[in-house]
Amino acid sequence: MKPTISNPLHVRQAEFGGPQPLFCIPLVATNMTSLVDQATVAVQLKPDVIEWRADFFHEAYAELLREAAGELRALAGDTAIIFTLRAMNEGGVQNLSQSTRRALIEAVLRTRTVDIVDLELSNEPPFLEALMELARSCDTRVLLAMHNFAETPDNDVLTGHIAAMKDLGADIAKIAVMPQTADDVLRLLQVTTRARREFPDLPLAMMSMGALGSLTRVAGFLYGSDMSFAVGKIASAPGQIPIDDARRATDVLLRYS
Amino acid sequence: MKPTISNPLHVRQAEFGGPQPLFCIPLVATNMTSLVDQATVAVQLKPDVIEWRADFFHEAYAELLREAAGELRALAGDTAIIFTLRAMNEGGVQNLSQSTRRALIEAVLRTRTVDIVDLELSNEPPFLEALMELARSCDTRVLLAMHNFAETPDNDVLTGHIAAMKDLGADIAKIAVMPQTADDVLRLLQVTTRARREFPDLPLAMMSMGALGSLTRVAGFLYGSDMSFAVGKIASAPGQIPIDDARRATDVLLRYS
Repeated sequence: MKPTISNPLHVRQAEFGGPQPLFCIPLVATNMTSLVDQATVAVQLKPDVIEWRADFFHEAYAELLREAAGELRALAGDTAIIFTLRAMNEGGVQNLSQSTRRALIEAVLRTRTVDIVDLELSNEPPFLEALMELARSCDTRVLLAMHNFAETPDNDVLTGHIAAMKDLGADIAKIAVMPQTADDVLRLLQVTTRARREFPDLPLAMMSMGALGSLTRVAGFLYGSDMSFAVGKIASAPGQIPIDDARRATDVLLRYS
Repeated sequence: MKPTISNPLHVRQAEFGGPQPLFCIPLVATNMTSLVDQATVAVQLKPDVIEWRADFFHEAYAELLREAAGELRALAGDTAIIFTLRAMNEGGVQNLSQSTRRALIEAVLRTRTVDIVDLELSNEPPFLEALMELARSCDTRVLLAMHNFAETPDNDVLTGHIAAMKDLGADIAKIAVMPQTADDVLRLLQVTTRARREFPDLPLAMMSMGALGSLTRVAGFLYGSDMSFAVGKIASAPGQIPIDDARRATDVLLRYS
């Protein structure tokens, strides 16, 4: 059985922290045409959440992103949308200045078409505070994320990042780290258990990346993770499993646990 | 991908320590009629190995067990058979004296109808040595097992048990322990990783029991376990998953890892 939290967070049809595991399909389209294509494929796979990784767009300017957000909203129906414009040093694709990135995120938030905005914890406090305040005023939830594509920091360090996310007022906390050994994968699950215990009202998305970490994408739910990323048409990070296979494995694990 | 060992052990169609995960269906029949029934069901599910838990028989005398072993061999075809006559203090069902138990195991070994005999590590050395010697002379492999139905001992203790099994000449080492917390389950997987590294030529069957530990029955293969027990008709231990569901989850985990 999946652990639940004291006050699950409802975002459209998705319940973060409820008894059902949530699968999010990322969209990594490079232009409007492929965004529509990927979103159409994704919606048919009935994900619980869709993440638009807007940093994959080859061109990124406010008018285009606003238009794309509107198209996506129409296609997604009542499926929650996470909007992400990740900087290159956060594992993103677009090399934008901080001010351009902030302006683009603000432009999309103001359309009120996305439900959740993903922001990296490592951003400077003024950047985070301004965008989180705007998100609140636009009735958009904030997911704070910590990525490490090289290694899996110590358990205490990872737990500290989640504490920092909670202190900042995150609605959802996400940790995605790269394992170097099988033990690193098991440590990420240990951190998940600990975080679920220490932050009983904070929805979590916890994963160990790469092929080595793929277990966490289906078994993290057993230990307190609430959302996993799974492949619709194209993966956005190493180790993501096609959503149907991921659901199949998770169903077995949750049924007998 | 499942870790492999330096010299996989071939027992009939089963390769212990090879790239394929092995699923063993236990038979917990109380008499000859139900043994035939359970074996027939099990064979249809195409397990890699069948374990006959002979201690579940309500009556246990040499002639009956010899006859049952012959019936089972005929039904099992080329599927490897583990013969187990577990004492009550090892989690077994029959309350037999040590000398009666030894005589019964000897009687079945001499039929040369079973491929592997399961013996608990905690038995007195003379008991183990005598039965292991007889097993060798009957061309039967020895699985040494350590069960703990109450808790999960420390990692060092568990690793020490496996070292002791190897020193005694086990062909396969099995650890089945009860978790009290999610961390205990993850520790069992850590011990599996460590044992795979420290004993690179010893086939392993490693599991955390109960619903809490069910993950290990499908994910242990990722960390170096070679065999898992799954349900055919009736489970023999808490947390066992029906074999088709277990295979489905394991397939996904191994395909993307």
